[in-house]
Amino acid sequence: MRESKYAIGIDFGTESGRAVLVETKTGNEIATSIYTYKNGVIDKALPLDNGPVQLEPEWALQDPQDYIRTFQKTIPDVIAQTNIKPEDVIGIGIDFTACTMLPVRNDGTPLCTLADYRRNPHAWVKLWKHHAAQPEADKINATAHQRGEKWINRYGGKISSEWFFAKTLQILDEAPEIYYAADRLLEAADWVIWQLTGEEKRNSCTAGYKAMWSKREGYPADAFFKALDPRLEKVIDEKMSRTICPIGDKAGELTARAAKWTGLKEGTAVAIANVDAHVSVPAATVTEPGRMVMIMGTSICHMVLGEENRTVEGMCGVVEDGIIPGLFGFEAGQSGVGDIFAWFVNNCIPEEYHNEARKSGMDVHHLLEEKAALQKPGQHGLLALDWWNGNRSVLVDVDLSGLLIGAILGTKPEDIYRALIEATAYGTRVIIEAFEKNGVNVNELVACGGLPEKNKMLMQIYADVTGRNFKISASKQTPALGSAMFGAVAAGSKAGGYDTIFDAAKHMARLKDEVYEPIPENQIIYDQIFTEYMRLHDYFGRGENNVMKTLKKIRDQVS
Amino acid sequence: MRESKYAIGIDFGTESGRAVLVETKTGNEIATSIYTYKNGVIDKALPLDNGPVQLEPEWALQDPQDYIRTFQKTIPDVIAQTNIKPEDVIGIGIDFTACTMLPVRNDGTPLCTLADYRRNPHAWVKLWKHHAAQPEADKINATAHQRGEKWINRYGGKISSEWFFAKTLQILDEAPEIYYAADRLLEAADWVIWQLTGEEKRNSCTAGYKAMWSKREGYPADAFFKALDPRLEKVIDEKMSRTICPIGDKAGELTARAAKWTGLKEGTAVAIANVDAHVSVPAATVTEPGRMVMIMGTSICHMVLGEENRTVEGMCGVVEDGIIPGLFGFEAGQSGVGDIFAWFVNNCIPEEYHNEARKSGMDVHHLLEEKAALQKPGQHGLLALDWWNGNRSVLVDVDLSGLLIGAILGTKPEDIYRALIEATAYGTRVIIEAFEKNGVNVNELVACGGLPEKNKMLMQIYADVTGRNFKISASKQTPALGSAMFGAVAAGSKAGGYDTIFDAAKHMARLKDEVYEPIPENQIIYDQIFTEYMRLHDYFGRGENNVMKTLKKIRDQVS
Repeated sequence: MRESKYAIGIDFGTESGRAVLVETKTGNEIATSIYTYKNGVIDKALPLDNGPVQLEPEWALQDPQDYIRTFQKTIPDVIAQTNIKPEDVIGIGIDFTACTMLPVRNDGTPLCTLADYRRNPHAWVKLWKHHAAQPEADKINATAHQRGEKWINRYGGKISSEWFFAKTLQILDEAPEIYYAADRLLEAADWVIWQLTGEEKRNSCTAGYKAMWSKREGYPADAFFKALDPRLEKVIDEKMSRTICPIGDKAGELTARAAKWTGLKEGTAVAIANVDAHVSVPAATVTEPGRMVMIMGTSICHMVLGEENRTVEGMCGVVEDGIIPGLFGFEAGQSGVGDIFAWFVNNCIPEEYHNEARKSGMDVHHLLEEKAALQKPGQHGLLALDWWNGNRSVLVDVDLSGLLIGAILGTKPEDIYRALIEATAYGTRVIIEAFEKNGVNVNELVACGGLPEKNKMLMQIYADVTGRNFKISASKQTPALGSAMFGAVAAGSKAGGYDTIFDAAKHMARLKDEVYEPIPENQIIYDQIFTEYMRLHDYFGRGENNVMKTLKKIRDQVS
Repeated sequence: MRESKYAIGIDFGTESGRAVLVETKTGNEIATSIYTYKNGVIDKALPLDNGPVQLEPEWALQDPQDYIRTFQKTIPDVIAQTNIKPEDVIGIGIDFTACTMLPVRNDGTPLCTLADYRRNPHAWVKLWKHHAAQPEADKINATAHQRGEKWINRYGGKISSEWFFAKTLQILDEAPEIYYAADRLLEAADWVIWQLTGEEKRNSCTAGYKAMWSKREGYPADAFFKALDPRLEKVIDEKMSRTICPIGDKAGELTARAAKWTGLKEGTAVAIANVDAHVSVPAATVTEPGRMVMIMGTSICHMVLGEENRTVEGMCGVVEDGIIPGLFGFEAGQSGVGDIFAWFVNNCIPEEYHNEARKSGMDVHHLLEEKAALQKPGQHGLLALDWWNGNRSVLVDVDLSGLLIGAILGTKPEDIYRALIEATAYGTRVIIEAFEKNGVNVNELVACGGLPEKNKMLMQIYADVTGRNFKISASKQTPALGSAMFGAVAAGSKAGGYDTIFDAAKHMARLKDEVYEPIPENQIIYDQIFTEYMRLHDYFGRGENNVMKTLKKIRDQVS
């Protein structure tokens, strides 16, 4: 038996960074440490000492120093908690929100740390949920379709305002001085790896899913960028890189400076950066086609692997090597799930339910689950379209809105709650059917994230609605575990890690024992209701009745 | 100046009876007295001393003795309050819920007061909201359409389970011994008049609106009743009457027994009975075509007068002399209005709104109105179909259900509240347009009932949505005032009353000074949204997408 070695995975989230120390042999999570970012999500004003700079609506920034502080606080902390020798930590991996990007100097210095640029919001990190670049995204989509760019099909025909070049173009549009001052534009994921290793190495996951790159075709042609804006023609060669490292590669080794920050040994292996959702796939034991991983929280990110490239309606992206090396990683998504339930609980639950929940010492979500779980499928007589936050896959339309049908005077809050959960399950079934129709098999579902832990009824409903077994990742911090797994792969088997992510997954990833299996009599009912869901989905979602858009247009006009 | 004379109007409601003493010269309401029925709505078990008899679901009965007690308690009370001499009370009128009917002996004795029948629920008064006769209503409708009966067109092609012959047929189906024991089957409205005057006289309003009678054609032919059930062939001649008195007639005079109950003089004039909704029309000053009276409460009853008979889609009925003698009275209705708002307030309002309302000392409806009134039309981006309780006019379909579209994560309770109010206003507009399309003009609206008093925003929305001036009846007890007006007409001008309801309305009825006028910029927006409402109305209501029925069918199957 070989002696215990450890890898550290760091998950850079929206509000905080989380480090997990994992035993490579077993995948056991030995210690965890969380650092809440000092400057958090910057969406009102820049955190400056010399007078505030206000931000526009829809802006969301971060401070790159918070990422360095995450290393400085959490890694020494997990070591201290366990008394493990630093030399037994053989590798580090990280995952990040995406696209979260920033402009830096040639030496990696963020522009926002320089006095000349510090008061310019465009010099800071644009967080994934910075939504102020919609006009730029619209322009990219229009230009791509005008030019008949084929790469847009990899993204369901539409790129998002959250993505890399929408944000880049916004910098150029609104602060050309920042664009020109930036030697490099890159994902924060790649920037933190650079800070650890001293070398700029870009990962295939963010390049593929967020920056229109593909392994076989590279980035869109310079002519496309020129058509978008002549000043952008050479953006790839001047500010980015055509060298993209596949997920699973080693990025480099810890520098002396980074060793000092973390207390780890100089030379410790560091993995290529990854994205929080995608790194969860192997951490949920999935390294082969056929099982779909769903990160379930405020929204759902659906990921499934395939051996061939396929075009699937409304998917968020397909990237070769994007999730697991050697395979195509398909991504789709639902833009509203947990946040619809939260909306309902915050806006539509009567006082007596709050009183009842307090009396029983449970939260309102649990009370609603308890009441709704007593029902049989179809018993509430309701049907909803889960578009409170628009529709990501397969319709890719932010102007769609929520619908509830079937309400009567006897309708109770738990009826609506259950109908909303079912609606999101129907939304997932639409995505599964789109994948399968295009030759990407989905035989089983694996959940990660906060929702599956909290709501057993939801899990059963998803199994019944989709007709597939539904399992749950064993780790409560799946992304950080996945990052540690890639850290172990960066170190390699000789150092006590693994040579491939497949080997790492075999030993370090686990599912819970419980399996939610579809109940045949429930499936029969849900199949009937899903037929009705699809009819409404197509009627309101595919242009036959554009009432949702008309209402939004009127709303925008009068507001 | 003639000396003061008085009339008494008694409004028999669902839970109580209300007497109002009115000065005939001015319409001033001098005194009011309410008697809450001892046995209320009987919907669980018969109120018996010798052991309970349970009722089936959907049943709703009343005790006829409660009506007599109403006379005995309220009339002496209004006299006592005012010290008016009994001989100055010149006339009595009553109005009643309808169809509220009972089986009695030839002498008027209700079967439920006889020991032999007292334990049989079918011997009691079937209240308007007794909903257990739906199979019988279905059979009547099917038989009428099979036989091509023309009278069914007067009722929008469908009669309700609440109506007279559905209830009659249920007695025959389920308790033939009661059917055969009954010498007479009649409206409680006519029965209480009989109790006052000693004579059975039936009114044209309930006969026309609830019992398929018309002035020109009488009742459906015996052959129709025979086709329905051979035992029913002679129901009209055996248990009813072909003599129907027009609204506005005198029914008779107070008997010695009734004078003793009430403290009034024997011989006091008594008017033909009327229905609560219909008697409100002249009490709201309307005795001519062109102005629609809307009784607004849990539901809305719409009434408008015309000079010619017209067939209007989905109306509840058209009856010559049914509201005002010499005119055709058209009735339509919305089955859910105030009860939809109540559903929303009871089921969907978060705790903090209740706290806020308590802090400001207002009820939650007012808080919601206050918040929603700050919005411009269209600003919430929502649209609802107001079918929480099915659709009465114009679709006549109880299996339709509520719909809400346009919800987003930022949708607030006041947004939904306003959208629900607007939806009911669109529902009224559909009715108005159906009338006008068929040549029944609606130039102005007049409201009675509880809602108009409570919610100014609602009144303005109805004016804006319908594009018509909206006024409010001055009386807070419009039906009772209307009954007193008919009491004054029964007495005649020589006794200090009036010779016609037109004269009575001129002197005794009043509107409030405030007028809600349509605001042109609001109308423009509501016209746009109404177009969308109509498209959804027809799509879901006219068979193109029967999802509401499918959901109901599934609900019924699994429950």
